[in-house]
Amino acid sequence: MKVEKKINMCSLELLFKPRNVVILNFSQKIAFFVEGFKRQGFDLENLYLISTKEEEYSDIKCYKTFDDIQEDTIDLLILSVRRELLIKSLGDILSKKKVKFVHIFTAGTGEFDELGMEIEYQLKELLDNYKDTRAIGPNCMGLYSPRGKTAYYSSFPIEEGNIGLIFQSGDLHSKMIKFGSKRYGLRFSIGISIGNCVDIQISEILEFFNHDDATDVICVYFEGISPLYKNEGKILFNVLKKMKKPVLFMRGGRTKRGQTAILTHTGALATKSDIWSAIFKQTSVIEIPPSLDDLVDQVYLFSHYIPRVKDDNNDIIYPVNKRALVILWSGGFGILATDTLTELGLELPHFEGETLESLKKIYPLKIGSLSNPLDLPWIIDRKEFVELGKAAIGENIDLVIIETDAWRDMEDGHFKSYYNNLLALRAYVESLNKSFIIILHQYPSESQAKFTDMLMKDEFIVYSTIEAAAKSFLKLYEYGKRSVRLNKEEN
Amino acid sequence: MKVEKKINMCSLELLFKPRNVVILNFSQKIAFFVEGFKRQGFDLENLYLISTKEEEYSDIKCYKTFDDIQEDTIDLLILSVRRELLIKSLGDILSKKKVKFVHIFTAGTGEFDELGMEIEYQLKELLDNYKDTRAIGPNCMGLYSPRGKTAYYSSFPIEEGNIGLIFQSGDLHSKMIKFGSKRYGLRFSIGISIGNCVDIQISEILEFFNHDDATDVICVYFEGISPLYKNEGKILFNVLKKMKKPVLFMRGGRTKRGQTAILTHTGALATKSDIWSAIFKQTSVIEIPPSLDDLVDQVYLFSHYIPRVKDDNNDIIYPVNKRALVILWSGGFGILATDTLTELGLELPHFEGETLESLKKIYPLKIGSLSNPLDLPWIIDRKEFVELGKAAIGENIDLVIIETDAWRDMEDGHFKSYYNNLLALRAYVESLNKSFIIILHQYPSESQAKFTDMLMKDEFIVYSTIEAAAKSFLKLYEYGKRSVRLNKEEN
Repeated sequence: MKVEKKINMCSLELLFKPRNVVILNFSQKIAFFVEGFKRQGFDLENLYLISTKEEEYSDIKCYKTFDDIQEDTIDLLILSVRRELLIKSLGDILSKKKVKFVHIFTAGTGEFDELGMEIEYQLKELLDNYKDTRAIGPNCMGLYSPRGKTAYYSSFPIEEGNIGLIFQSGDLHSKMIKFGSKRYGLRFSIGISIGNCVDIQISEILEFFNHDDATDVICVYFEGISPLYKNEGKILFNVLKKMKKPVLFMRGGRTKRGQTAILTHTGALATKSDIWSAIFKQTSVIEIPPSLDDLVDQVYLFSHYIPRVKDDNNDIIYPVNKRALVILWSGGFGILATDTLTELGLELPHFEGETLESLKKIYPLKIGSLSNPLDLPWIIDRKEFVELGKAAIGENIDLVIIETDAWRDMEDGHFKSYYNNLLALRAYVESLNKSFIIILHQYPSESQAKFTDMLMKDEFIVYSTIEAAAKSFLKLYEYGKRSVRLNKEEN
Repeated sequence: MKVEKKINMCSLELLFKPRNVVILNFSQKIAFFVEGFKRQGFDLENLYLISTKEEEYSDIKCYKTFDDIQEDTIDLLILSVRRELLIKSLGDILSKKKVKFVHIFTAGTGEFDELGMEIEYQLKELLDNYKDTRAIGPNCMGLYSPRGKTAYYSSFPIEEGNIGLIFQSGDLHSKMIKFGSKRYGLRFSIGISIGNCVDIQISEILEFFNHDDATDVICVYFEGISPLYKNEGKILFNVLKKMKKPVLFMRGGRTKRGQTAILTHTGALATKSDIWSAIFKQTSVIEIPPSLDDLVDQVYLFSHYIPRVKDDNNDIIYPVNKRALVILWSGGFGILATDTLTELGLELPHFEGETLESLKKIYPLKIGSLSNPLDLPWIIDRKEFVELGKAAIGENIDLVIIETDAWRDMEDGHFKSYYNNLLALRAYVESLNKSFIIILHQYPSESQAKFTDMLMKDEFIVYSTIEAAAKSFLKLYEYGKRSVRLNKEEN
């Protein structure tokens, strides 16, 4: 076993920023890779396609054989051959040329049948003989790295962000990027669809992210450890304990029935739930229910919050309590919000004494309510809206939730005043290092889409349900509490 | 007390189909009523506006005083006056003219302060003296009744549907219609925003819906009973026991904190949670969590299912088990679906023996999986997709869930074949009286919107998350089980 191969951060940087890329056995079927590179602006001079069938693709010349390529060292080789040819192809190449990283795209290996598992054993054996070559996969979509201008789909955003992804499902990985970027404008530092893990392990990528300045929060979709790396469980646990950043961890196979499904997907060894309970207890890792929607919802708040709410030492200030102020203009929604938030474990402090008196002085309501939820029909476009909000936000509030709805006429003066009120109130709330979340209900409508766009462009945090907002805030709160506790235990 | 006023179904029909309507104290501020009537096609000859300020509105003449109106009997009077004038206005009118129904729009009564509560007492006293006059409200938006061509907003659909609404929040009532119709194409038989209930009670409308042929399923948003009708709790319980249709019941004030919020909204007496637990146990009423999204999601399946799945006696066949078959083309989603469904209490039967053999014969997969979830990448547009689906649906399946995604090119031949496959598979599943649900993930995109539209037009049931689909199916299952049990106990 070549332990020295492991955990070399410098080398991983090259995986995410390859100077050149070779795609073996290129065909139209996998043209999406090329489209991904093109869209990201990867220098096509350094992209080599090898194909016996194609002469060229989209002005990029195709080489007949690997030997035609003049580069001394290949930084990234994308291997897309039938599984029967995998060992021979890779063996041939490695015997002739220095290859830093291989992305084994081929599926139908360990997850599929015994022959496939045998191929994975042989792959590991082969790679063990080439100590400078590291591989991801097989059975994975590979890499999305805006910093290296690489992506496997042209639909992925070109802008870098602060979310790191490690996924043991290529499709979920792609959908995370697609849903996240379209729904909330999420942006990613690096995404890796890692597959069956015959070489590079999840723990290694986590360590990389832990030291990567661009990455603020990490999402993992985990199915299990490779049968070839039975120690990986322990290593992973130790890495998770050391993480200095939030890790949102979604585990496939939380149920026994789900574990049987995993056998046909990555063929990984599913880990028992009680082991995971222990891990979640002893680390600051945040468990996410088995839903991509929950993961997208929840990482949205982390990715937005972390860069903004820092103290003078540049340390992130996580909420230490979970007390919400709700402002809206609908009594019915106020009651549902109160029930939902209370059932989820948040608190809604009552206004008392001086606070209540000052609210009454600012605006004596005839309709609505000066309690929490603050129900303010008719006056949302007046300056009193902001004044009431400010007066209501005391020391005992950690989170402000505004429930709103789309306006038919966004050129209307009332709308503009209301929108300015939202901006003013957010500025005040964020100056106090508290969270400010907008709830805008979801339904197909032009004005709804336009208002959502406007809010997103101005970097409001916008959820479509109060439940999604509350659950996301609770994860932020939970992470803050647990990372503080674990830090204390450490010192 | 005039008990004889209560429960006269014929008279309620008139509330929902008034021959004439008078709006007292009309002004531009409440022009939405007129717009609602116009949109529904109400005969404007029978709509009377009374206003001291306006000469006419939108070609409808305004009368100076109530006395100018020549009708002998007023079917519906909409009363929008300041609370201070409420008793005098209504008293004057009732002393002069026969009025069948009054919608008291005025807010700021019992929910607001003691003076407001005093006004409600006086209202009741006044109405008790006019035995042929019934009233809804105060503090409510009133009526939406496509059969009577009445609505208070012009955005409400004109087509009739099979969902009845009784809401103690005008805003939630409006949003239910707006979200429901836009998100899922829901249509309603009658909607009533009932407010503080000084006269007509929720129990009466429930009884009406129980006998109303157009109404298949009823949604209630309940805050509490009026302090003027302390017996209403018992009456409501008895009516709920008698209901022969599903009632989806969302209760504001499930938490103590929520109950304090209700005091400022309808001023109703909140009912204790243990009383409600008992009611839910002894009736077939389905409790909905405090979320309008959940209510909209869940009534969608009921309203779609009930008219379709009937036996030869025209009785609805509810699912008696909760065993799902999931078909998709993504291994990762398959695992999340398995975990989610299992955690929510559904089962995913394994394929065994003959079923498994016939699946293998139809299509020996190289990638994907012939277990449940059926993971069928590459072949979704081939005839084998339908054949595999049919072979997999045995006696042991109650629900088929198809997870899908939008296509960029819907003119593409592959897409058309795939879509025909979906139609064929649904026809087969529905011929077996089983449920067929599509999951199409939600993100802003043109192709997603176009595909959603297409599926909705063809009356597919489409949810954006597997969780929403599963929760909705479980409510259907729960209702079936409970109504059967209660029927048995009765006989």
